[in-house]
Amino acid sequence: MATRNFRSDNQAGVHPEVLAAVAAANTAHQPSYGADEHTTRLQDVVASHFGAGAVVFPVFNGTGANVLALQAAVPRWGSVVCAAEAHLNNDESTAPEGVGGLKLVPVPADDGKLTPEAIDRHTWGWGDEHRAQPSAVTITQSTELGTVYEVDEVRAIAEYAHGKGMLLHVDGARIANAAAHLDVGLAELTTRAGVDLLSFGGTKNGLLFGDAVVVLRPDLHELVRSIPFLRLRNLQLASKMRFVSAQLVALLDGDLWLRSARRANAMATLLAERLSDVDGVRILHRVQANAVFAEIDQALVAPLQGAFDFEEWGGGGGVRWMCAFDTTEQDVADFVAELMRLSAAR
Amino acid sequence: MATRNFRSDNQAGVHPEVLAAVAAANTAHQPSYGADEHTTRLQDVVASHFGAGAVVFPVFNGTGANVLALQAAVPRWGSVVCAAEAHLNNDESTAPEGVGGLKLVPVPADDGKLTPEAIDRHTWGWGDEHRAQPSAVTITQSTELGTVYEVDEVRAIAEYAHGKGMLLHVDGARIANAAAHLDVGLAELTTRAGVDLLSFGGTKNGLLFGDAVVVLRPDLHELVRSIPFLRLRNLQLASKMRFVSAQLVALLDGDLWLRSARRANAMATLLAERLSDVDGVRILHRVQANAVFAEIDQALVAPLQGAFDFEEWGGGGGVRWMCAFDTTEQDVADFVAELMRLSAAR
Amino acid sequence: MATRNFRSDNQAGVHPEVLAAVAAANTAHQPSYGADEHTTRLQDVVASHFGAGAVVFPVFNGTGANVLALQAAVPRWGSVVCAAEAHLNNDESTAPEGVGGLKLVPVPADDGKLTPEAIDRHTWGWGDEHRAQPSAVTITQSTELGTVYEVDEVRAIAEYAHGKGMLLHVDGARIANAAAHLDVGLAELTTRAGVDLLSFGGTKNGLLFGDAVVVLRPDLHELVRSIPFLRLRNLQLASKMRFVSAQLVALLDGDLWLRSARRANAMATLLAERLSDVDGVRILHRVQANAVFAEIDQALVAPLQGAFDFEEWGGGGGVRWMCAFDTTEQDVADFVAELMRLSAAR
Amino acid sequence: MATRNFRSDNQAGVHPEVLAAVAAANTAHQPSYGADEHTTRLQDVVASHFGAGAVVFPVFNGTGANVLALQAAVPRWGSVVCAAEAHLNNDESTAPEGVGGLKLVPVPADDGKLTPEAIDRHTWGWGDEHRAQPSAVTITQSTELGTVYEVDEVRAIAEYAHGKGMLLHVDGARIANAAAHLDVGLAELTTRAGVDLLSFGGTKNGLLFGDAVVVLRPDLHELVRSIPFLRLRNLQLASKMRFVSAQLVALLDGDLWLRSARRANAMATLLAERLSDVDGVRILHRVQANAVFAEIDQALVAPLQGAFDFEEWGGGGGVRWMCAFDTTEQDVADFVAELMRLSAAR
Repeated sequence: MATRNFRSDNQAGVHPEVLAAVAAANTAHQPSYGADEHTTRLQDVVASHFGAGAVVFPVFNGTGANVLALQAAVPRWGSVVCAAEAHLNNDESTAPEGVGGLKLVPVPADDGKLTPEAIDRHTWGWGDEHRAQPSAVTITQSTELGTVYEVDEVRAIAEYAHGKGMLLHVDGARIANAAAHLDVGLAELTTRAGVDLLSFGGTKNGLLFGDAVVVLRPDLHELVRSIPFLRLRNLQLASKMRFVSAQLVALLDGDLWLRSARRANAMATLLAERLSDVDGVRILHRVQANAVFAEIDQALVAPLQGAFDFEEWGGGGGVRWMCAFDTTEQDVADFVAELMRLSAAR
Repeated sequence: MATRNFRSDNQAGVHPEVLAAVAAANTAHQPSYGADEHTTRLQDVVASHFGAGAVVFPVFNGTGANVLALQAAVPRWGSVVCAAEAHLNNDESTAPEGVGGLKLVPVPADDGKLTPEAIDRHTWGWGDEHRAQPSAVTITQSTELGTVYEVDEVRAIAEYAHGKGMLLHVDGARIANAAAHLDVGLAELTTRAGVDLLSFGGTKNGLLFGDAVVVLRPDLHELVRSIPFLRLRNLQLASKMRFVSAQLVALLDGDLWLRSARRANAMATLLAERLSDVDGVRILHRVQANAVFAEIDQALVAPLQGAFDFEEWGGGGGVRWMCAFDTTEQDVADFVAELMRLSAAR
Repeated sequence: MATRNFRSDNQAGVHPEVLAAVAAANTAHQPSYGADEHTTRLQDVVASHFGAGAVVFPVFNGTGANVLALQAAVPRWGSVVCAAEAHLNNDESTAPEGVGGLKLVPVPADDGKLTPEAIDRHTWGWGDEHRAQPSAVTITQSTELGTVYEVDEVRAIAEYAHGKGMLLHVDGARIANAAAHLDVGLAELTTRAGVDLLSFGGTKNGLLFGDAVVVLRPDLHELVRSIPFLRLRNLQLASKMRFVSAQLVALLDGDLWLRSARRANAMATLLAERLSDVDGVRILHRVQANAVFAEIDQALVAPLQGAFDFEEWGGGGGVRWMCAFDTTEQDVADFVAELMRLSAAR
Repeated sequence: MATRNFRSDNQAGVHPEVLAAVAAANTAHQPSYGADEHTTRLQDVVASHFGAGAVVFPVFNGTGANVLALQAAVPRWGSVVCAAEAHLNNDESTAPEGVGGLKLVPVPADDGKLTPEAIDRHTWGWGDEHRAQPSAVTITQSTELGTVYEVDEVRAIAEYAHGKGMLLHVDGARIANAAAHLDVGLAELTTRAGVDLLSFGGTKNGLLFGDAVVVLRPDLHELVRSIPFLRLRNLQLASKMRFVSAQLVALLDGDLWLRSARRANAMATLLAERLSDVDGVRILHRVQANAVFAEIDQALVAPLQGAFDFEEWGGGGGVRWMCAFDTTEQDVADFVAELMRLSAAR
């Protein structure tokens, strides 16, 4: 097996600058639960990226961020519209339902991307006590299929949602990859496009652990007030929060977030390009972020996994190859060479 | 303000050996979600401490460990008997109820310690569908009041609980401090005393973050089977788990856990001794772990907090002074000197 | 066994006037879910008793009313202060926690009655995210021990609660018995005393089934808006609601509620008087509603139960004798005679 | 407006035989919570229909029955596969999620009917902690679209489910209509076809209120043991249960259930026949139970509703006409005449 693989960006380790920030934060005693200087600094850094009204709440992981953000956004009788392919729908067990009390309304989505029209077919029954009231839309940036919503696509969903009295949440486990792909700033892709609430992803972009809920709209006072209470209730309050915040500051105060995302994206693009002519390999979705989805000759799957770990997806030769902040051109070259060798040997 | 304070052991940073272990674990890609080599190693280390049948599940924090362990132990109609002073009852918001679905039965407890007799007064209604069925007892080691259950006291509660068909859980956020005080091994204080389930605390004993649920009885197959599913459902599954496990290995594979706990305990003992004759200071509970509870002249509280941060407790001059793995004799001496100066100046 | 017993007022059947009202409501088709004429009429009748701003929501049972009312009143991180003896705490399994997401804070209460002072000892940690925020107080009228809060006692608790930003809920499973004892109107005992929310009890006062949540304060718009949605979510929305509402109208539109409660109370008073001098019988609490609590020679319990069913309470000869709307003077006389016979034969 | 309408079978009242049974059960005191003679009798009657191993648990309403049955069948990390059109998915607000803790997996279904193939496309991720584990399938008999599963179709789904370790639940709010259509006994359609758990519907077939959970397989001991506790926890335990049970006995001890269902079905069939040639009316699904789904000229909807209440369905002239146990041939004739008059007057 190779030193680095293509299974998931969460199999990568920690970026050295992040680890250095953790070590630097290890100075004697600091107030716990977010009253430390690193969390204060993080708030400033987040506001500089997302707008002066943005408020940040560090949490442990992405599922925690999603459930917390959406629970804060939705009444006990509310539903959340999501893509059928959403991590929230497929990979978070019963956390949305059992912890968040949320009803999900999964909507089939080409390339993993919702549209106002698709959402509208599943939102009805307004005011009817029998039907969970559609209260939020959540989209994933970049999507679970490696695609990216354009800024205008986000804005169109935001306008639709707001027109119906719903909030728009972005599961941004890989939002850095989306921004890198579009070459836009984080505010342009979120706050200024009408997004209300964000799960900002750190873990998949080179942190030890650590994500954050960011409330983007300064007028959502009730949410800002409730999230600290809900964060503890949802088991997401780090006592030594300085070590989460220091990592997020290392990522965002400067361009580490962007450098890392660009690297991961570039490696996925390179991989897709190199494989575009390989016999027995068909790229399935547009490669816009750090994932390559493909269908390969099923006979190749097992031998290829003998050399590089990666995920099968949907059965029948479907695969996902994921690049990380530390994937190298050599990794890609080695992978391509192995796949070509196996393909030729069929 | 001083570099180190006496507010909480979660205001301390990371032990250097733990940080070194995190850095050492940062090698290229590793399987996520616990299939890594560090988590495998942790399982061996935990079994060496707690017994061959012990199974460990790393989690993010102590509240997560408590809610996960107890939810796994209790049916949807079950209740959990705890001391009224328990962290679970006072400091975990509605997580036990809203996330765990648990009904707590708080029992007043001298020195924070339950007894079979006290528990028995609150466990009744067996078989009656109207009453949540008492299904688990949880005790805290060391307790929220800085006291420690003797091994025989734990055993008596375990025997009582088992006789009623209940499981015994220990909230061991500071179990190292209890073992250090009693000078017994971890198994002697838990597995061999009849404890079924443990929340093992790492964060307060020098980790960045990280605790664990440990199932101690090898015959609790159903629990062992359910915890992985419940851990994700309860937002406690770290994707880059190697960085939690490596910390816990650093703590437990060797005597770091014990050295750190002994240091914290010793500083609390020293503090209590030095203050035993100081005018206007009355020590409230036996100082057995790393906390000193006292009642001081209320006029001293504010000026003392100007120099050292600490917690007020219960109002009216009640205070809690907590020592950590990094508290020094000089810290104690400085604190005592300041308090004596203020006392003399009244 | 006797035709009527003293076990519980829910062992009695239906008052004939209520059954007649059900039959009268059985006319062809009516809109479901509360849009029928009987529910409209009920709203008027409730407003005439409780004040023009009162809004009524019929539900299936008392546990449903309590959980619904309190969930509507409390945020996801809120706690509810109740007497340790409360039905909500002892007899509703994990419904408050598992369905309502509520954390209960049980407070020991003499005679089952809370006071502002007792509540105040358990409400602290305001603004602290670690502690479930005290958001409502609930009291039971008449209490689980057969006692009754005076109007001024209710008012004092309401003022305390409101001063702390909490709402006051009354579990009025037997509020008719309390009003009958005090000889006051329902508004005087609730709305005008500062009560915000009421679980109005019908089942124990002669209905087939059926209770109601009543929002008493006209300015609690958010509650009034949320309860219809929460009622369905909490499995409490009767499709053929006319048959619940018609029963409640039969009870409240006229004096059936009062006649029935007076009868039950009078029988309890008579029973207590007749037994006051009987050897081996000691009345335990003031008999103010329809329950008599006593301690009797333990040897008498079993033989007495051979003739009349009743509940043992707390062990050791503790008993509860409950009268219902249909208990007769002859029932009381027969019971007393049997008890005296058994006592004499010891 | 007409005396009877076509909006829903829950707008009908109570069958006179049921009301008589309630009156007959109103004899002095009876044990509460199911220890009464009527509930005992109901158990025998249910066993005579569904098999000797069947165990019945009366509840208040259909949503309560569904959530209770499925919560009992599914672990905290389990999912429930249902048709996208299911009442459970569309008409029970967040009760499945918020009360039951259930994750629903909605599957698009022609005519409202699932098949093993359709289910199989949505059940994957077995053993993966990230994905809620598929633990039960629920189907509705007759379906929300007025169609009926054949016995063999039920059996095929049961075999599929059992092969995957899942249980099969039937939402039988209208199971009597399905059995009447197929002209088979209740056991043939459930127990003998492999169904594990049933929500038996009474309310829509002429009761005041009242449905039941029936466990059909005698070896599901754990479910039978847990349901009494979960029933109270889910706010579904009637204290005066005799009045629920007596109604269900009236329905099932004899052929009232079948007579009423046959009448409702026959009226729907008649309605569909009479309208088959009417201009501007198109029948949408097979009419197998007591519902007629149609698409009518949108201009007819409002005027027709001026005379007869009914439900619009899906917008754009979609309508649902529902017959009840008390719908008469004259009702159908009047309705058809009015629709023909309006159609001709366009």
